[in-house]
Amino acid sequence: MPVRDNVEIGLNRFARRGYDLDEVSIVPSRRTRDHDDVSTAWQIDAFRFEIPLVTSPSDAVVSPETAVAVGEAGGLGVLNAEGLWARYDDPTDVYRRLRDAAGPDSGPPTALLQEVYAEPVKPDLIAARIKEVRDAGVTTAVRVSPQHTVALAPTVLAAGVDLLVIQGTIVSAEHVTTGGDALNLKEFIADLDVPVIVGGAADYQTALHLMRTGAAGVIVGVGADSWSTADAVMGVRVPLASAIADAAAARRDYLDETGGRYVHVIANGRIETSGAIARALACGADAVQLGEPLRTAAEAPAGGVWWDSVAAHPRLPRGGTSAPAQARGSLEEVLLGPATSADGRTNLFGALRRTMAKTGYRDLKEFQRVDLVIGGNGDTAAGPGHLVG
Amino acid sequence: MPVRDNVEIGLNRFARRGYDLDEVSIVPSRRTRDHDDVSTAWQIDAFRFEIPLVTSPSDAVVSPETAVAVGEAGGLGVLNAEGLWARYDDPTDVYRRLRDAAGPDSGPPTALLQEVYAEPVKPDLIAARIKEVRDAGVTTAVRVSPQHTVALAPTVLAAGVDLLVIQGTIVSAEHVTTGGDALNLKEFIADLDVPVIVGGAADYQTALHLMRTGAAGVIVGVGADSWSTADAVMGVRVPLASAIADAAAARRDYLDETGGRYVHVIANGRIETSGAIARALACGADAVQLGEPLRTAAEAPAGGVWWDSVAAHPRLPRGGTSAPAQARGSLEEVLLGPATSADGRTNLFGALRRTMAKTGYRDLKEFQRVDLVIGGNGDTAAGPGHLVG
Amino acid sequence: MPVRDNVEIGLNRFARRGYDLDEVSIVPSRRTRDHDDVSTAWQIDAFRFEIPLVTSPSDAVVSPETAVAVGEAGGLGVLNAEGLWARYDDPTDVYRRLRDAAGPDSGPPTALLQEVYAEPVKPDLIAARIKEVRDAGVTTAVRVSPQHTVALAPTVLAAGVDLLVIQGTIVSAEHVTTGGDALNLKEFIADLDVPVIVGGAADYQTALHLMRTGAAGVIVGVGADSWSTADAVMGVRVPLASAIADAAAARRDYLDETGGRYVHVIANGRIETSGAIARALACGADAVQLGEPLRTAAEAPAGGVWWDSVAAHPRLPRGGTSAPAQARGSLEEVLLGPATSADGRTNLFGALRRTMAKTGYRDLKEFQRVDLVIGGNGDTAAGPGHLVG
Amino acid sequence: MPVRDNVEIGLNRFARRGYDLDEVSIVPSRRTRDHDDVSTAWQIDAFRFEIPLVTSPSDAVVSPETAVAVGEAGGLGVLNAEGLWARYDDPTDVYRRLRDAAGPDSGPPTALLQEVYAEPVKPDLIAARIKEVRDAGVTTAVRVSPQHTVALAPTVLAAGVDLLVIQGTIVSAEHVTTGGDALNLKEFIADLDVPVIVGGAADYQTALHLMRTGAAGVIVGVGADSWSTADAVMGVRVPLASAIADAAAARRDYLDETGGRYVHVIANGRIETSGAIARALACGADAVQLGEPLRTAAEAPAGGVWWDSVAAHPRLPRGGTSAPAQARGSLEEVLLGPATSADGRTNLFGALRRTMAKTGYRDLKEFQRVDLVIGGNGDTAAGPGHLVG
Repeated sequence: MPVRDNVEIGLNRFARRGYDLDEVSIVPSRRTRDHDDVSTAWQIDAFRFEIPLVTSPSDAVVSPETAVAVGEAGGLGVLNAEGLWARYDDPTDVYRRLRDAAGPDSGPPTALLQEVYAEPVKPDLIAARIKEVRDAGVTTAVRVSPQHTVALAPTVLAAGVDLLVIQGTIVSAEHVTTGGDALNLKEFIADLDVPVIVGGAADYQTALHLMRTGAAGVIVGVGADSWSTADAVMGVRVPLASAIADAAAARRDYLDETGGRYVHVIANGRIETSGAIARALACGADAVQLGEPLRTAAEAPAGGVWWDSVAAHPRLPRGGTSAPAQARGSLEEVLLGPATSADGRTNLFGALRRTMAKTGYRDLKEFQRVDLVIGGNGDTAAGPGHLVG
Repeated sequence: MPVRDNVEIGLNRFARRGYDLDEVSIVPSRRTRDHDDVSTAWQIDAFRFEIPLVTSPSDAVVSPETAVAVGEAGGLGVLNAEGLWARYDDPTDVYRRLRDAAGPDSGPPTALLQEVYAEPVKPDLIAARIKEVRDAGVTTAVRVSPQHTVALAPTVLAAGVDLLVIQGTIVSAEHVTTGGDALNLKEFIADLDVPVIVGGAADYQTALHLMRTGAAGVIVGVGADSWSTADAVMGVRVPLASAIADAAAARRDYLDETGGRYVHVIANGRIETSGAIARALACGADAVQLGEPLRTAAEAPAGGVWWDSVAAHPRLPRGGTSAPAQARGSLEEVLLGPATSADGRTNLFGALRRTMAKTGYRDLKEFQRVDLVIGGNGDTAAGPGHLVG
Repeated sequence: MPVRDNVEIGLNRFARRGYDLDEVSIVPSRRTRDHDDVSTAWQIDAFRFEIPLVTSPSDAVVSPETAVAVGEAGGLGVLNAEGLWARYDDPTDVYRRLRDAAGPDSGPPTALLQEVYAEPVKPDLIAARIKEVRDAGVTTAVRVSPQHTVALAPTVLAAGVDLLVIQGTIVSAEHVTTGGDALNLKEFIADLDVPVIVGGAADYQTALHLMRTGAAGVIVGVGADSWSTADAVMGVRVPLASAIADAAAARRDYLDETGGRYVHVIANGRIETSGAIARALACGADAVQLGEPLRTAAEAPAGGVWWDSVAAHPRLPRGGTSAPAQARGSLEEVLLGPATSADGRTNLFGALRRTMAKTGYRDLKEFQRVDLVIGGNGDTAAGPGHLVG
Repeated sequence: MPVRDNVEIGLNRFARRGYDLDEVSIVPSRRTRDHDDVSTAWQIDAFRFEIPLVTSPSDAVVSPETAVAVGEAGGLGVLNAEGLWARYDDPTDVYRRLRDAAGPDSGPPTALLQEVYAEPVKPDLIAARIKEVRDAGVTTAVRVSPQHTVALAPTVLAAGVDLLVIQGTIVSAEHVTTGGDALNLKEFIADLDVPVIVGGAADYQTALHLMRTGAAGVIVGVGADSWSTADAVMGVRVPLASAIADAAAARRDYLDETGGRYVHVIANGRIETSGAIARALACGADAVQLGEPLRTAAEAPAGGVWWDSVAAHPRLPRGGTSAPAQARGSLEEVLLGPATSADGRTNLFGALRRTMAKTGYRDLKEFQRVDLVIGGNGDTAAGPGHLVG
């Protein structure tokens, strides 16, 4: 197994040096290219997408309706089989309670999240939500957690999903248990007719092991967006640029070991601007999984409030909740522009296309080879108080 | 003696590169494990604890009553033989004065701390406090400073403590004096019937020398929590991740040199979240010494105000005092959950258990080998103002 | 091609380490020199300037009138052939709208910029603006974008400019297109009678290729001042100290390969203080291109508001706009002093002269060899709240 | 000449890596020592001081009266032969104007400083001020700038100073001029009967050259305290820990080359806390030059306002001015304690003594060998807002 740069933090105790996406930047080099000659298309298994977007399975931004809208905009919306739409016949009122509990500077309290997620999941609701998306004619994807995969997958599959997403914050191909039967991912996937995306993984080895389960895609990262507190709560941090590059190395090695099976690497973490999307792909990802950035779309079901599902954990919540963001425009404008602000939060994939053009790359696979630089100052448009009044 | 990474700060003048806990993070790897299959138990000498917690001997969080509560929750409470409970028959009023002198954004003034600690220590009060804890049936530990060990230890031992803690901010095994008899730790410990924990130490060599005194445990770090000003006042900084790893190396070398004596390493410093606890243990500590994090317990005798004893020094105070924190729940909730907030300040040891499960480790000794990473962004749940209004 | 320091961000994925200007500082060494014995003069082609200043082609700070004032102060003002003066017969009213739309803490909205720049460019206005500057007797320079060079250059040249500036945020010598004829810079420049400055470039190779087109000067950097959001929007960051040094290496190599053609390196980016000007030259630049720093001049046409032209992009704006800055004095005072404040924002080139004197250098070419240091604390005059109230 | 760690910032362009004092910390090691067994004494030429303190020649903190008080507290006060006391018969009113022009959050405006320093220097006033200090029986030191040394030194020497300080922000042993006679330091010093301290120097070579002029002490650093803007204005930064260590190396080499002449290294820069004092000495300084930290003394003539003389430069001011600090106690308390606050701003030299004791060193010369560490978190006592409200 290859090993990265190592630091001796104390005598004989080593740590790898990892880099976050915002430490790594793209360097324009020798060639430029026409904007119209660039493709941002992505294909996984038989499914082709105009933009390399997989949504987080987050109630804050994904309803059946927005999953359809994402599909129509060229991406892949992922429904959560364990989210509010699977717990409530009509979650409108729950969304309203959460939205109303947020203040101008604070999101809804954790205890309220814990309360609304205490409602049990209902399989028939899952089936109904899938049908709704499917009927709209877009690619249908549903997320289940590893713990409930065995229980919920039959319902999900019977409802006719195109892609199954098995996702927890931290997933391994080797779960040890003394108290019952653990999910054997390899056997489970082998028996399925639909392609599976699985994760998150944080290093080369876990990514490689997950690839060996037969997954079509592996999610890299533990979902640590700006609202995550995995760091404070669990001491866990996954410098995402390094994790993506390591997973891309696993992809290459697995491609070699199988003589040609290409497993997609989907980056998931602090990817909140078009610049971060470009960086994630430049580090080697095939697609990005986005949640929080979609909350500024007018269609976002929670009205601009954000939380990740782990923020609702009954005993150990690991994420904050955000105050409502003002809508920036329609979902299509957020994804495809035009932008009327300059902060990298709208026209997310139009910006990607421009970055590819300005660095001279034709498609995403080529763009994974773009030159990178470490260092340089961060991404502010100098705010008020920067200087002379 | 082994030597760590060295930096030439100027011509022929070198400094070691040290890392703080918040620079080092835990990387989930290959394996995961069931939460219920994980043990957080710790044993030192004959004493077994369900959680690897030693309290700071801090009046702000430890009274005889809370020492008992910590013991009942599975940890080790440490009384301060030189604290308020040893100076005042009933310190309730002193606590009230300190609490009342704090404002919404500021702690009690240093001068008031200096005043209340000017009251002399009374040996009979020490004995009474020990009895109170002992009678409750939990393991009893008392801290004395190196300077007063000879004077106070007889009282403490006669009162029947289980563990003696000899602790100053900076302690060495070789104290040089021309003005009297210095405490000879090795001879002193050899004569005792109870196990001794001694510290703080900041490097490999001091830790090794303290192990050679016969101590059962060595405290690593100089107590530099967020409220410490050892840095501004003395120019002293102890990057804790490195100090723990160095002390763990001393533990290994001493184990080898003695053919099997295992001296416990107890980390003491900026350990304020469950994430930091996990990091400290991952770097090689056997247990953590916590003070400030316990102030959010409803039982905290100072009502959420925090100060370390060094903040009360008569001529050279070296720590700030905090405004009162709001109670987060009972001491048991702070230590064992459930948490209703996501900032890593409650369910401290439940979170540790989950980290161990998610990284696949069964017990603390194994967990000391978990993969580490340097780098990545810090531990915020992005607060108000993070982005779009 | 030579290669700089490389970092392995993940397995087999490398990034160069780059340094920004504010990470690099000048170290006074052995010798000092009289202030009056120092020259800050710069000459490109037949044009000599008392100070190494090229303005950004920015409407916020350059009108025909200020271009003349810059020339009279010893620098080179650059008109924008695609700016407001080329779109409006009298842009006074547009400036007023933009100025009025700014608040005390915010600049005019991006949407308003997009609106005012939607007005078409008129060739006859370009000609009139050039004539106005030319008639004042200063060196005349005009900027066109690469996309519009073919269309606009004839007008610009016919009007009699001295220097043509072909500038986009990111320019290469090899633009690939399938949809029409790309500008062939080499052929275009070979046919011209006036010297050309071209850019921006971000690395050694692009700078070298641009030098080979026959340009007299190459702009290094992508215009990323503090108001730029190229980082957030495109994921692009150009650590400027490194980019300048790399371009200076290209200059040396091209000088060697041509047996004596010296192409000037003009630095463009976060250069906002006299200290940053000194740093840019110390890293190897021959001159600096400044925009934002000139907005504090009383003559600035936008009354202290700042935006870069890329902030007005119709679909993907990549820069913020600033609240109005208070005037610091006349343009001459901003450039040549005296200063009545100490923040490095006035007497920009008097300060450069002093730095050169205090480090013992006589002229700019010598000064490019000054000793540099990485590290040390940043450039604050400790503001309110620094300490004791 | 020895060379430090080098970084390639761009192709073939190198910068040395420098460290500031706040990046370097002291590590307690093996031994501790009794507080009373430690000496902080310093001797230069025939003059012995109980504490290694030389004041900055700053009007904000040094009047003849405070120079005497510093002497009585064991340090060396330095009068400025070009300061307010040399320009005004009675500067009381000037101090009052400056103090009154400061607001609660801002110091007096730069323009006012420039105005009051436009008053000419009067030699008879210099003589009178020296006499006043001399008559009090303490060691007398006066600073002149290199430019005015020839003109003012006769007056200063005739008045009977003990030590002459020739100090500018940046001084070299080789000043090149075409417009007149430069001061030849070596010849000038050889002709003197009193020992000379000269500086500031920023690197090994300049320090060595200044030592070769026959100086008794060399000031290292360019006076860059927190209020300095040398960085923003001139692009000059002197990472002080490295500069001190380099000058200490020059001291060793010069000691060897002369067979025993020991030239003292006096550190001058961002030294504002007792911790920073300890660090400067630990890096190799023999004494520290302090200005800003003395402004909190009740005796400070400017009532807590701070400015450095360079902040008053007529054309290129390079330092800010501070809002008034509240007095922390008498000058003696600031220097020798006791402290009633914990921020390292009082009991400056009592703290040094304690650091020496806790790290086991007997005197300053030994203490220059203390172990150092790079890294670790900065010097806060976590302020309001640190956590739980």
